[in-house]
Amino acid sequence: MKAVQLYYPPEWAHCYGCGYLNAHGLHIKTYWHGEKGESETRFTPSPHHTALPGFVYGGLLASLVDCHSTATAAAAKAAAEGLSLEAHPLRFVTASLKVDYLKPTPLGPELLLVGRPKEVKGRKVVVETELYAEGALTVRGEAVLILIGEDFGRSKSAPGGG
Amino acid sequence: MKAVQLYYPPEWAHCYGCGYLNAHGLHIKTYWHGEKGESETRFTPSPHHTALPGFVYGGLLASLVDCHSTATAAAAKAAAEGLSLEAHPLRFVTASLKVDYLKPTPLGPELLLVGRPKEVKGRKVVVETELYAEGALTVRGEAVLILIGEDFGRSKSAPGGG
Repeated sequence: MKAVQLYYPPEWAHCYGCGYLNAHGLHIKTYWHGEKGESETRFTPSPHHTALPGFVYGGLLASLVDCHSTATAAAAKAAAEGLSLEAHPLRFVTASLKVDYLKPTPLGPELLLVGRPKEVKGRKVVVETELYAEGALTVRGEAVLILIGEDFGRSKSAPGGG
Repeated sequence: MKAVQLYYPPEWAHCYGCGYLNAHGLHIKTYWHGEKGESETRFTPSPHHTALPGFVYGGLLASLVDCHSTATAAAAKAAAEGLSLEAHPLRFVTASLKVDYLKPTPLGPELLLVGRPKEVKGRKVVVETELYAEGALTVRGEAVLILIGEDFGRSKSAPGGG
C-alpha cells in the first residue's frame, strides 16, 4: 500500500513532518484502510525526541497527530468523493489541533496512531486520533483540517498549520 | 535575565524542545516578565522547519507553544507562591495542548510568543499564548500544565506532554 503523503505532488511534499522531499524531516507516513474507514501511522521516535528521560516529547506527539490528521483528511475526502488520490491529489492544512496527553508515552517502542474522520463536509474535515504505545492509549488528538487550492501560498488568508 | 528553562536541574533538562542538555534539540528559551505578568519566547525556525514552502511547520509551532507554556507555568506558579526558581525549581508537564492556526506563519522571520497565565491553582496552571510573525498574530494556543513531583518517571500515571 502507498502512503497518502506519497501522492502529494512535489510542490506539496516539503513538510518537515511528512514531506518526502524534506531531507531533515520526520517522513511520517499515513496509510488509509478504506474498508475500516480509518488510517494508521507507525513511527519510532529517536532517542533525542525525549521530554523527561524515558518519555516521548509532547511536541513530537503533536507533530505526529498533525501530519497523521492532514493525510487522513486527504484520504477520507477522496473516499467520500469517490476520487483517486493518484489522479486527484488533495492537500489539507491544519486550522486547529487539540492534543490530550493522557499519560506519559514511553520512549523506545514504535508508536501507533489510528485516525478516524469525524466530519467530512465541504473543504473541512475533522479527524480524531488515538495514539498507542505497546497497546496502551497515551494520547488522544482532534484536528480540524482545511482543503487548500492549488493557489495556496499566493494568498495568506488560509489557515496555516502542518 | 535568565531563561526559565535554565533553572531546571539536569534531570529535567533533556527535553527536545527546551532542554539545555539535549544536543539535538531546539533549545527554546522562555523569559518571565513579572511586572507584566507575562512570558516571552523568541525563536527563529530553520529553513527545514517548513510546511508548504514559505511557511512554518505546524508541528514546530505546536512545540513552541508547548515548551513556552510549561516554562510559563513554572514562572507563574513561582510568582504566585512567592518562590525563587533558583531555590525551588518547578517543572510542569502538559496535560493538554490546543493550537489554533489563524493564518500561515511565514518562514524566515524571528517568531515571538507571548504567554499569560489564565489560571494558577494547586498543581494546575492554564496558559494562553499568542504567536506573532513580523507583528502579525498567526497562532493562538492554550495549554493545561501539571506540576510534577521529584518522583516523576517512577509512576506512569501522570499526564505526559512536553
